[in-house]
Amino acid sequence: MTLNPADESFARLIRAELGDDILRPVTERYLEEPRRRFSGQAAVLALPRTVDEVAALVRLASRKQVAVVPYGGGTGLVGGQVMSEGPAPVVISLERMTAIRAVYPSENILIVEAGAILADVQAAAEQVNRLFPLALAAQGSCRIGGNLATNAGGVNVLRYGNARDLCLGLEAVLPSGEIWHGLSRLRKDNTGYDLRNLLIGAEGTLGIITAASLKLFPRPENVGTAMIQVRSPEAAIALLALAHEQLGDAVSTFELIHRQGLQFLTEALPDVRQPFATQPEWCVLIELGLFAGQAPMDALEKLYVAAEKAELVGDAVIAQSEAQRADLWAIRERIPEANRLIGSVSSHDISVPISLIPKFIERANEMVAALGPFRVNCFGHVGDGNLHYNVFPPKGHERSEFDSQRQVVKRSVHDLVNAFGGSVSAEHGVGRLKADDLERYGDPARMSAMRAIKTALDPLGIMNPGAVLRS
Amino acid sequence: MTLNPADESFARLIRAELGDDILRPVTERYLEEPRRRFSGQAAVLALPRTVDEVAALVRLASRKQVAVVPYGGGTGLVGGQVMSEGPAPVVISLERMTAIRAVYPSENILIVEAGAILADVQAAAEQVNRLFPLALAAQGSCRIGGNLATNAGGVNVLRYGNARDLCLGLEAVLPSGEIWHGLSRLRKDNTGYDLRNLLIGAEGTLGIITAASLKLFPRPENVGTAMIQVRSPEAAIALLALAHEQLGDAVSTFELIHRQGLQFLTEALPDVRQPFATQPEWCVLIELGLFAGQAPMDALEKLYVAAEKAELVGDAVIAQSEAQRADLWAIRERIPEANRLIGSVSSHDISVPISLIPKFIERANEMVAALGPFRVNCFGHVGDGNLHYNVFPPKGHERSEFDSQRQVVKRSVHDLVNAFGGSVSAEHGVGRLKADDLERYGDPARMSAMRAIKTALDPLGIMNPGAVLRS
Repeated sequence: MTLNPADESFARLIRAELGDDILRPVTERYLEEPRRRFSGQAAVLALPRTVDEVAALVRLASRKQVAVVPYGGGTGLVGGQVMSEGPAPVVISLERMTAIRAVYPSENILIVEAGAILADVQAAAEQVNRLFPLALAAQGSCRIGGNLATNAGGVNVLRYGNARDLCLGLEAVLPSGEIWHGLSRLRKDNTGYDLRNLLIGAEGTLGIITAASLKLFPRPENVGTAMIQVRSPEAAIALLALAHEQLGDAVSTFELIHRQGLQFLTEALPDVRQPFATQPEWCVLIELGLFAGQAPMDALEKLYVAAEKAELVGDAVIAQSEAQRADLWAIRERIPEANRLIGSVSSHDISVPISLIPKFIERANEMVAALGPFRVNCFGHVGDGNLHYNVFPPKGHERSEFDSQRQVVKRSVHDLVNAFGGSVSAEHGVGRLKADDLERYGDPARMSAMRAIKTALDPLGIMNPGAVLRS
Repeated sequence: MTLNPADESFARLIRAELGDDILRPVTERYLEEPRRRFSGQAAVLALPRTVDEVAALVRLASRKQVAVVPYGGGTGLVGGQVMSEGPAPVVISLERMTAIRAVYPSENILIVEAGAILADVQAAAEQVNRLFPLALAAQGSCRIGGNLATNAGGVNVLRYGNARDLCLGLEAVLPSGEIWHGLSRLRKDNTGYDLRNLLIGAEGTLGIITAASLKLFPRPENVGTAMIQVRSPEAAIALLALAHEQLGDAVSTFELIHRQGLQFLTEALPDVRQPFATQPEWCVLIELGLFAGQAPMDALEKLYVAAEKAELVGDAVIAQSEAQRADLWAIRERIPEANRLIGSVSSHDISVPISLIPKFIERANEMVAALGPFRVNCFGHVGDGNLHYNVFPPKGHERSEFDSQRQVVKRSVHDLVNAFGGSVSAEHGVGRLKADDLERYGDPARMSAMRAIKTALDPLGIMNPGAVLRS
């Protein structure tokens, strides 16, 4: 299907139907993405205030066969938010639709518009003494609609699941311009196909999420946080199994950190307080959320004693105050920033079956070493099988010196992930960056089903073309 | 699209390609369903042993435009497993595909074929000291493929979610006959559309699930079970909120029971031991699964004391032994059997937003009372907002005397549910019984998306025609 550019005549149509105030000049931020691998084109930028305005915009785009790029916080890492090829699209930013529409504490439900900043959703839950557990580095600027469109992960997936697991219902504009009023407050509803989960993770290619009904949780009474040295990735996984056995789903965070990450902090962010005098090869950040008067110290000490007996662990630091807890979290949370300052040759957001993680790390390290004198910072959500396996230039060198090797490094890592039955995008999505990977590694039957669904729901191909599926 | 009957010439084709052993004479059980509202037609019955055989059967059906009815344990309550109209279908029963293909305790994953009996899946998890939490009345005969196809619920949804929340991946034969190899062992994988959740709950209309990768959980160290009298449905909901506040996700079961249910047990199943000398108007069955050495008695007593202080509860029975626990569970689990023996005029598997339950029960009772001298047994998974709201003839009368009122009772209850923003099928699915309800109450934009998806994936309309969507 040939698309038409969102030109001045299209802008006039929008103004005529929705008034002047809905359009804004296109500024640079709508055409960039954090890693600067893609840049968007000049386009029409619309800032609707209601779902009806979103629907009107989509109907106009459908009538004129103009591409639509839904825009949230712009923090996505795979280029899903910028259309770098084809006729210029209309960018529909949800930034004016930020209302918390309703909170139902007794139902543990919150209904929010898609443009709300994630941190504001967390705060609204906290106000009624509930937890909205989605938490990730970009939470101060990413928007909940984007979190849902990309099925965002983060540091609490182990206990609470991904974004899709936290959503009960959606309001969305389908590519036809029809509005799906699906803001369910039901925990159980078995009436027909799961359109909600189809839109979640579709990265704006099957419609625009305009509001969501989200699950809240009781806030744990007590939180316990520790950084524990582990002897190996195997030991980390055994420690997690032990923690699950002792504590069930009280384990909310379990993050693996490699010495390289600690060294990058020393190198790039020396103000970050290091937990150990000597940087260990591997350590984990563990956090427990406890109820019923359970003491975090007791729980963590009991776990540590059992883990020591099983020869899994070395030294440990248990947070004794909120300030110490923040220090431990800063280690984990500032590693991505240190990574950016060092500058990676190639970054990989991958997952493999949890029991295969040790073998995967070993093989990947051997493979990368054979390709060049790279440094590897491998860290992340080991409890979910999700690692950020990032490859850096040797000390004293710039990433640009290795531009010619980027593709071979990436391809080698991704091929290995695929051989391990893993995913080349565990939590960031496909966007435009990994559309070719999806073609390469995707199951053929699933790929043809995906294409059939895309054509069925968006026959003109106007919704975020080029993202997820090559157009 | 016109379909052809699965006749003798079609059976010959199957035998020629797959051998004689794959077909069986069609016996009555494949043409019935538990409530006997629908009866199937004479058809070809195929019992494949492998996913490749399932795929070959679907390809033949596609080539000859013959309808396919996937068949699990036959326990579904909405007629999804019997095709009562149109040309006779080929029934594909998964009963020979029952293997536990693999168990990965360190990953908390089990991979099983679709024909495995749910109780056998539970037992396989228990063998490695893990919990597979899906639990429901039919667990001794229903099959996991059917549980997934209908997104089964049951008594542990509150803590662990519905069937869809317990599944990481699927192997399935799509209507084209292509096999989707999607038995993922990944907790996080954001590469493309969520085909898994689309097939789960589609009741065999978008493909045949042949195997699944399932989530296991740590087994709670201690279990605490109690039956507590509550002053009203409001009090039940307040008690649940209190339990969540004190105990977080340790609350695994929270079932509301009305006096009518206890009276039906006395009437129809007098061997069931009653928990209270005087039958209370409302009581709840609560179960806790605890870790980290927490004592169930302490937890339940602390909850009870707080609930008593808040004037929510009356007497309570806390199970002191496994035998007492079984007695308390028998109350809840044998109510459906008592219901069948009494014989309902109309049964409703509904959900409404949790905070609206008290008002819904009040209004529904008034409405039913205005329709006739009925008895109402309202019970179920109140923590999920899911009630079984079942209407019975007055004592001494037969359901058949009220046949003429069945439709008006059902319609009135469903209209009320819809007015409350609820679902007319919380956990049983749509099948053929509620396909008209879906037309009546379904969101129009969602309905057109569902039809477009059905046509895209099954253009010939061979997969379980007439279920979910009217053909």
